[in-house]
Amino acid sequence: MDLTRRHVLTGAAGLAATPLLPAISADAAAPMADKQAPSFYRYKVGDAQVTVISDGVNTFPLGDSFVLNAKKDDVAAALEKAYMPKDKVSIQFGPLVVNSGGKLVVIDTGNGPGAFASSKGNVGQFATNLAAAGIDAKSVDLVVISHFHGDHINGLLTADNVLAFPNAEVLVPSVEWKYFMDDGEMGKQTSERMKGVFANARRVFDAGLKKKVTPYEWGKDVAPGILAVETAGHTPGHTSYVISSGSGKVFVQSDVTNIPYLFAANPGWHAFFDQDPAMAEAARRKTYDMLVADKLMVQGFHYPFPGLGNVEKDGSGYRVIPAPWNPVI
Amino acid sequence: MDLTRRHVLTGAAGLAATPLLPAISADAAAPMADKQAPSFYRYKVGDAQVTVISDGVNTFPLGDSFVLNAKKDDVAAALEKAYMPKDKVSIQFGPLVVNSGGKLVVIDTGNGPGAFASSKGNVGQFATNLAAAGIDAKSVDLVVISHFHGDHINGLLTADNVLAFPNAEVLVPSVEWKYFMDDGEMGKQTSERMKGVFANARRVFDAGLKKKVTPYEWGKDVAPGILAVETAGHTPGHTSYVISSGSGKVFVQSDVTNIPYLFAANPGWHAFFDQDPAMAEAARRKTYDMLVADKLMVQGFHYPFPGLGNVEKDGSGYRVIPAPWNPVI
Repeated sequence: MDLTRRHVLTGAAGLAATPLLPAISADAAAPMADKQAPSFYRYKVGDAQVTVISDGVNTFPLGDSFVLNAKKDDVAAALEKAYMPKDKVSIQFGPLVVNSGGKLVVIDTGNGPGAFASSKGNVGQFATNLAAAGIDAKSVDLVVISHFHGDHINGLLTADNVLAFPNAEVLVPSVEWKYFMDDGEMGKQTSERMKGVFANARRVFDAGLKKKVTPYEWGKDVAPGILAVETAGHTPGHTSYVISSGSGKVFVQSDVTNIPYLFAANPGWHAFFDQDPAMAEAARRKTYDMLVADKLMVQGFHYPFPGLGNVEKDGSGYRVIPAPWNPVI
Repeated sequence: MDLTRRHVLTGAAGLAATPLLPAISADAAAPMADKQAPSFYRYKVGDAQVTVISDGVNTFPLGDSFVLNAKKDDVAAALEKAYMPKDKVSIQFGPLVVNSGGKLVVIDTGNGPGAFASSKGNVGQFATNLAAAGIDAKSVDLVVISHFHGDHINGLLTADNVLAFPNAEVLVPSVEWKYFMDDGEMGKQTSERMKGVFANARRVFDAGLKKKVTPYEWGKDVAPGILAVETAGHTPGHTSYVISSGSGKVFVQSDVTNIPYLFAANPGWHAFFDQDPAMAEAARRKTYDMLVADKLMVQGFHYPFPGLGNVEKDGSGYRVIPAPWNPVI
């Protein structure tokens, strides 16, 4: 075989290998790639353009209290049924960029630069994948936030704690804003987790953004062709969206369910991060029944990337059928 | 709002707009992106690394004879059930690069540079997506061909009709080679389609490669950790593969089925391009029963990109569950 560039590059290492190593080490082996494809994906909704920008995937051991009202064994069985390892949970984070009505709109922002460092790059990829998609954060007009959990708001700030989208207006659900900025509500919290959610929301919006946000109302367009829809329960102000253009329509479900093979398949399961589990379950069932009845495509923040699909009934729950990847826009 | 680069760029056009145009045309609108993400995807099989390199998607109107033994209405219904347009068919092409045992191995090559031009870039993307994945065609050691249809072999040649992988050995199934190089078999053909398949195979292997190929046998490793498996019927020498490394294993099904929501869901359906439909159906049922029984992951050349999944029984057919995208390798 002819010498190629990589043979030349790896040749010295190959020659230095001792005979005690397996033969393959002395071979002029093809180098393994160390990077995944940049995880962004584009599709059209009528005349609007949606770019899904993955913030990465977080994987953690399945604990006893991940689903509050289901046995760990049953959750493990559901993972196994979905061909996933049964002892751990992997959750993707998928912020969006929507180019609609002349405005460039970011919906949710991922885990932020701090998480990139602490997770060794597994999450907090939004900024790099945004750049890979050729989108300049300076060109973003509006940032729309669905709710105040850290995986949705932490990417609002750079590592220097200033707005990551310097020319953007930040829009937040007015109910969410009122709740998390209310000192009385904060004082009522007893769990460490909820104290942390409050503290983080105030870190981002108060210390970071100095409260320069615009609250928005449910039932109105929050941006051109992007309708804000109430789906409270996961948090008090949790919001979904309908992106519409011409005859195109996609429902952006935010966190109505988390990973679909657990929580769309089992809509009665209460993930520990649903703040009002009964209200979240009601929103989930109502939303998924509507998606099935209206044959409405859905984009899920925590669905596997790129997270666009259709929903159908499956026994006592729902199944999400991913939309086929289109290699052109 | 502050002036940003794109406002400056589009400002002149905005000013020149006449007042008769809708207001949005005079707005400093965010430019639409014109490129999809590069369609490649990496995953590990034990110590081996697989990179799926999309060659694109071909879309054509659903005709009466796409499925030989099913009514057009039934095929349209199956498309609709899969949330696809019911009047057309979209087929992806997914060649692989496998880095295994020190060798860089390409499995199948896509529709080639001629198709890129004639399809206006919808297919024939293999070379550009290979480059996007950082893989130099010169560094490929082996090119393994599953069968001699144009969407698998045409990418063997550059636009100048020389081997697109200049340092590679080209490996072909010995049964396929013998069949398509046999003048007697060629002389028996009566359909224009089959005459074309023969002519194209000879264009590539004879005029192009001057027959510099190495035939391989079923039941043996064709490359390190890549076992060739007989799945004839689609063509006489149609071959699948098992990629193995450590405890990792993936079945590369080639064209055992075409798009899974039609032909895995309805394994008795005979696509017009199955040369021996009954034999192809038998191979399909045997393969899919094995995939279900062994819980073996499968990579499908014509599955929606990236084409890795698991198979389960679904009524009288099978359902392919796509593996979740991993934003890191």
